Parts: sequence; structure tokens; C-alpha cells
Amino acid sequence: MDVISVIRTKRDRGELSPAQIDWVIDAYTRGEVAHEQMSSLAMAIFLNGMNRTEIARWTAAMIASGERMDFSSLPRPTADKHSTGGVGDKITLPLAPLVAACGAAVPQLSGRGLGHTGGTLDKLESIPGWRATLSNAAMLDVLRDVGSVICAAGDGLAPADKKLYALRDVTGTVESIPLIASSIMSKKIAEGTGSLVLDVKVGSGAFMKDLDNARELASTMVELGTDHGVKTVALLTDMATPLGLTAGNALEVRESVEVLAGGGPQDVIDLTLALAREMLDAAGLKDADPAKALADGSAMDHWRRMIRAQGGDPDATLPVAREQHVVTASSSGTLTTLDAYAVGLAAWRLGAGRARKEDPVQAGAGIEMHAKPGDTVTAGQPLLTLHTDTPEKLPYALEALDGSVLVGPADAAFAATPVVLERIA
Amino acid sequence: MDVISVIRTKRDRGELSPAQIDWVIDAYTRGEVAHEQMSSLAMAIFLNGMNRTEIARWTAAMIASGERMDFSSLPRPTADKHSTGGVGDKITLPLAPLVAACGAAVPQLSGRGLGHTGGTLDKLESIPGWRATLSNAAMLDVLRDVGSVICAAGDGLAPADKKLYALRDVTGTVESIPLIASSIMSKKIAEGTGSLVLDVKVGSGAFMKDLDNARELASTMVELGTDHGVKTVALLTDMATPLGLTAGNALEVRESVEVLAGGGPQDVIDLTLALAREMLDAAGLKDADPAKALADGSAMDHWRRMIRAQGGDPDATLPVAREQHVVTASSSGTLTTLDAYAVGLAAWRLGAGRARKEDPVQAGAGIEMHAKPGDTVTAGQPLLTLHTDTPEKLPYALEALDGSVLVGPADAAFAATPVVLERIA
Repeated sequence: MDVISVIRTKRDRGELSPAQIDWVIDAYTRGEVAHEQMSSLAMAIFLNGMNRTEIARWTAAMIASGERMDFSSLPRPTADKHSTGGVGDKITLPLAPLVAACGAAVPQLSGRGLGHTGGTLDKLESIPGWRATLSNAAMLDVLRDVGSVICAAGDGLAPADKKLYALRDVTGTVESIPLIASSIMSKKIAEGTGSLVLDVKVGSGAFMKDLDNARELASTMVELGTDHGVKTVALLTDMATPLGLTAGNALEVRESVEVLAGGGPQDVIDLTLALAREMLDAAGLKDADPAKALADGSAMDHWRRMIRAQGGDPDATLPVAREQHVVTASSSGTLTTLDAYAVGLAAWRLGAGRARKEDPVQAGAGIEMHAKPGDTVTAGQPLLTLHTDTPEKLPYALEALDGSVLVGPADAAFAATPVVLERIA
Repeated sequence: MDVISVIRTKRDRGELSPAQIDWVIDAYTRGEVAHEQMSSLAMAIFLNGMNRTEIARWTAAMIASGERMDFSSLPRPTADKHSTGGVGDKITLPLAPLVAACGAAVPQLSGRGLGHTGGTLDKLESIPGWRATLSNAAMLDVLRDVGSVICAAGDGLAPADKKLYALRDVTGTVESIPLIASSIMSKKIAEGTGSLVLDVKVGSGAFMKDLDNARELASTMVELGTDHGVKTVALLTDMATPLGLTAGNALEVRESVEVLAGGGPQDVIDLTLALAREMLDAAGLKDADPAKALADGSAMDHWRRMIRAQGGDPDATLPVAREQHVVTASSSGTLTTLDAYAVGLAAWRLGAGRARKEDPVQAGAGIEMHAKPGDTVTAGQPLLTLHTDTPEKLPYALEALDGSVLVGPADAAFAATPVVLERIA
């Protein structure tokens, strides 16, 4: 087996054989196949695709590159959620303790943000004392005691994916359905969850800009999960507009706590409950009532225990950025557009996200939204508050928003989009 | 400017801007763009192509990455030849001294072989004492004294191409017309020749397997040369069958000397004279008579002086491989097929070529052919003699030849192919 023949097969629109896939993933993990060879193969896959058989084998080979976790010793069924990433997508924060409060175990291995979408671990790290890194044993302890845990994936899970993900990030080969699906599912299957709900975002702020691509990604992942014995369901959800009224690390923690306290924006509540119902259903807990767990404070109770178990203080004051800048409505009417990508890019430029893996993020930076599309606004009223520790970046954030926050006439036709667009199982 | 946006432009079938091309070539040469980034860009170019404007700029950027040589101080017009590489293609050896004998200066910067096609420097290095490496000053001296020089290109010429060529070799991105054309022409234009004749091979033993691709490569290169003020002409020549009766290093030197002595196989003589006429014509020496220079011994005289000027002994006995193995005709009739790729692969496996840049080659290894397609053969007569220092590799060489040397009935229809198929200027 040699790597040039593997690259040529895909370059010339052929189908990679199971032996070619097993070999190239293993050889890349061991360092025998060089980065520059894997990146030309990744570009060939990006442009010429992989069929379902190839994707399944590619995923299996990445799982086989590392350890697999096992939660079968837990007394509760496990349920996990994965989002393909969006702007203002803080759902994991209220969702994990809520589902735990309803009787499932939620082993939520999460990542950090790169580019315009935030990362769950970055958000939680704005809570004073909170630590993302746990040993496998400590993670199991938290799962047993609290029922949910949100932490960084260990280095032992799907190391081939870790290496390939970092490579794709610097070689322009990220937005490929076969590569995205196999990356997500190899980690989730290796993690050992019994059931999985996928939140596949669609719209300007998501990787998938249109419904057809999102559908293909979702059905590919559902099939991969099912083939590996993981009960898998996908919801396609709207990401044309940011979720909730905040984008940024501490800002999103604050909003998540509002939802756990029984308040918060309606779209965040709706999506949290929709995903909770799918997770509980997939875990076989069909009688659980997540709306009740949100209302009676038991979800909040699990949140506080979960944050404490990882060293965080749930009562601590959250960091606030040094400077604020308010964007007001230039005319009266109806807010017709608040573009998710523009808000994500602006929040990133304000310091909420990172350009390179090793960059720090600002805990307080980000954007508060004071109106959402469909709302009536008055000239001069605040639409957004921009938060940053680096005000010299404000002009770049405002540039990102230019033309992406639009006010139309009061009687502007406006069709509200539901949060959940489709379900694929 | 950032490399991801350059990669994405080509990945998404866009046209690279002049600024993008200048930046990415310069940044890659300096090491700011990493190998894995250039290889994903190279695969995107392989699959999505470049138009003529992009190829011209890409070539100019590679020329600008290093020094340019200048032969304007020479009293003779300069003429160079480049072959895209074939099996048994020893033409440079008799051609350079022949054209020098007719009054042109021939600065022949050559390469080593990789894969199934041999390298001119590897062939000459089988002559005891001969050295491939000369300083620029020493090269000019040989050109002034003898009129022709065949040596390795210095590190200062088109370093971007040197780096990219080595990268393409290990990433499955070799056989791309825009990348081949820009690679060849950046070196030849930087070398500073006044005129250039391209020998573009077509057939199983060549990079270009069919006439349409060869035509596109040839016309791309002719346009690039002309745009840079180099008078450029291309001949498309046959590489379905090996050139001459030998493939291998010392074996091909011996055959070249036979041609210079007035003998040798007709196809080698014909192609040498055709290329010599084109070079002399492009150099403005329209009255020169290369057939006469071959017949009267003046080409041989230039050969001997050229070899001596680089430390070689033109009278030394050439190395002979330790073992020989004869392949005979299994039936009587007409030899209908002697496949160039199979012969090249077999010679490579016998030790005449290298798998990696750092491998040595065997001076004596290779294949002698005792018949060519169209010849009448008798059962049991020798068709090939295989030469090698590593007889344990013989079975692999024979395997490469299996089914590629075919004898048909005596009255088999056989259409002889001319050596020169087309001329593009």
C-alpha cells in the first residue's frame, strides 16, 4: 500500500477500498503519511466526494485509531447532543443539566471555538474557577454524582480525527460533508454514548448555508450512528439569525442561567426543550417532562452541582468587558434582518473568538441584541450593545455588521422562521 | 492576504488574481505558507485547472523567486531543448554537441530521473569521471569553449519550482498541465536561453497518454515562452514505443555514441536531426546542416570535448551490469507491440531508475531491444536482453513486461508511426 496510489484513486474519482482507508488513516496517525500528503487527499475528497460506504469505513478507521469509552456501568441511560455550530448557540449549557434532571446521563464532550462560531468550553471558562479538563475517571464520577458533565475530550479519543481536524482547518478543506460527518461521528461513537441527538444548523451563521446540504449531512450522520448501534436523530434548525439575545462567552452563560431560572429568550427555551425531548426519547425515558424540570428548579439545581463539580462557582459575578458601544436604529419600522454570520463575525472581532488555536479569548466580549427580526423598533432605540476589552477593534466589528442589521417599513412583510425546520431519523 | 482564501478561491472554481498568485508563490518559497497548504492548493489546481492568464502569472512568479541567467555575452545565439520525458530518450546526448557543431550555444540544464523515465544526468554519470555540477562561471566557460554543456541546474534558478516539484512528487499532483507547463517553462526562461524547442512526448511511456492533452501542454508552453521573449517551438513525438534500442544509463550512452559515430537506430537519428533543425532555425542559423555535422565527425568531436570539459573520459569503458537475462520470441511472426511504459517500468525495476530522490541508480542496468514493432521475428530469437546488478529483481521486471511485448502473425496489419507527430509554433 502506498499513499500516492490512495491519493490518485480519489483524485481520479475512484472509490477508496476498505483496505486503502484503513491503511491511510492508520499511517497518518502514526506519522508515516505526511501532513502534505493527507492534505492533498483531503482536497481530493472535498472536490470528488466519498460515497456512503467510504464514509462509513473512514469513520470506523478514525474510531479504531484510539480508545473507546464505556458508560455501561452507569445506572442511567446515556444521551448526548452535538451541534454543528452556530452564533449564540449556548444550548448545551441549559440542556445538559436539564436532561440529567430528567433521569439520563449526559456525557457532553465539547470543543473550543474557532472562527465566527463560539465554543462551549470557552463559554464555561468565563465562570471563575471552572475547569474544562477532567480525567476519564473524574468524568465518570461527575456523571454518576450529577448526571451531566461538560468537558474537553481526552487525547485518546479518535486521535486520527484530532490530527485531521487541525489539518483541515489550515488547508481550506473544512466544509466537506463526508469529512464533517466522519469527524463528528467518530468522536461521538468513540465517546460511547447510547443515544445521540444532532442539531444541524442551517443558514448564514452555519457551515451549511442551505437546507439540501444540511439534510445530506444530517442523514449521513444518522446513518453512521445507527450503523454503529447508537440511536441517532437529527433536527435541522435555523441559523439565519443568532440564537437568543447574546453572542459571546460570559454573555451566553448569563442568558443560559436565565433560561434555567425560568426566563430567557423564547427561541432558546424552545430549542432547549425540543432537543431535551429528543434526547430523553432516544434514551428510552419517554415519560420524562423537561418543561416541568425547567419550571420546578431541578434543572437549575443540576446546573449548580455540575459547575461546582468542575471547580466553578455558580454564584460568582461573571466578567464584564471594559468597553461598551451601542448601535441604534437609524429609522423606525420592523427589524427585518439580523444576520447570524455578521453577528458571529463581529463578536469574533470584538474578542469573543480566536483566529488561531493557541489564541486566548476575552470572557466579556461579544454582542447583546435588543431586538430580533419581526420586532417593531423606533429610530434611535438601541439595537445592539457591543462589548470588548480591545476597543481599537470596534471599527472592524462595525464593518462586519454593515448592511446586516436592516430595518424595513412598519408594515414590512415578515415571515417568522420556526426554530426547528425538520427532523431526520 | 491569507492562504486559506487563496485555496478557497481555486477550490470553489474561481480565478486566482495576480496578487494572490504572486503572494502564495513568494510566501511558499519563504516558508510562510506550509507544505500542507501548498499541497491542498496544488490538488485544487489539479482538479479545477488554471486558465492561460493564471498559468502565465504563476510561471512569472516562479521565475521571480530566484535568479535569471544571462548568456548575452556569448558570441553565438543560444538554443535549448526540453523533453517531457520518455523511455529510451537519450536524444540530449547526441543533440547538444551536434547543435554546437553547427554554430549555436546549447546551455542544457538537465535533471535526474524519477520513476520509469530516465534522467539525462544519470546517463552521463555512467561515464567514468564525468561531473554534473558546475558553477555558473564554469558553465559559461564550457559554453564558450565547446559550445554545449549538459549540467545540473543551480539552486538559484526558480527555487519556488524546485520546492513545488518535490512536493507534487509525493502528493499525487504531478500530471497537471498548468503545473507541468509552469514548472518546465519557469526553469527554462530563468535559464536565459534565446530559443527553445520542446519535445512533448505522447503515448504509454509519456506523462501525456493522448494527443489532445499533449497538444494542450505544448501550446500552453509555446505561449508562455513567446510571452517571455523566448522563441519557442514544440514537436509532439511518439512515445508508444521506446526510442532506439536501449533503455538504461550506460546502455543509452553507448547508443548515443553510435549515433554520433554515424550509426545507431534510425528513429534516434531522425529525432535528433528533426530537433537540431528546429533549434538551429529558432536560433537564426538557417543555413546550418546538422546531417553533415553528424556525417563529418564534427558532432563527435564536440561530444568528446564536452565530456572532457566536465572531467569525463570519452574513451573509457562503460560499466556493464553483473547479470544478463534474455527474453526470446515465443512464436514466429511480426513484432506488433513493444510498450514504452512496460519497458521503462522494467528498466526501473532492474535498477536503472530510482524510487526516491536520494536513491542511487545502477549505471549498467537496463534493457537492450533486439527488435522493434514491425520487425519480422522467429520463434526462439532474442527479443530483449535485461541487464542488472540485482538479479533478485528480475521477476518483477519480467512481470512488468508481461503482455507488453506481442508477436502477431507474419501478415499482421502494422501501421508504422512516424517519430514526429505534429509541430506547434
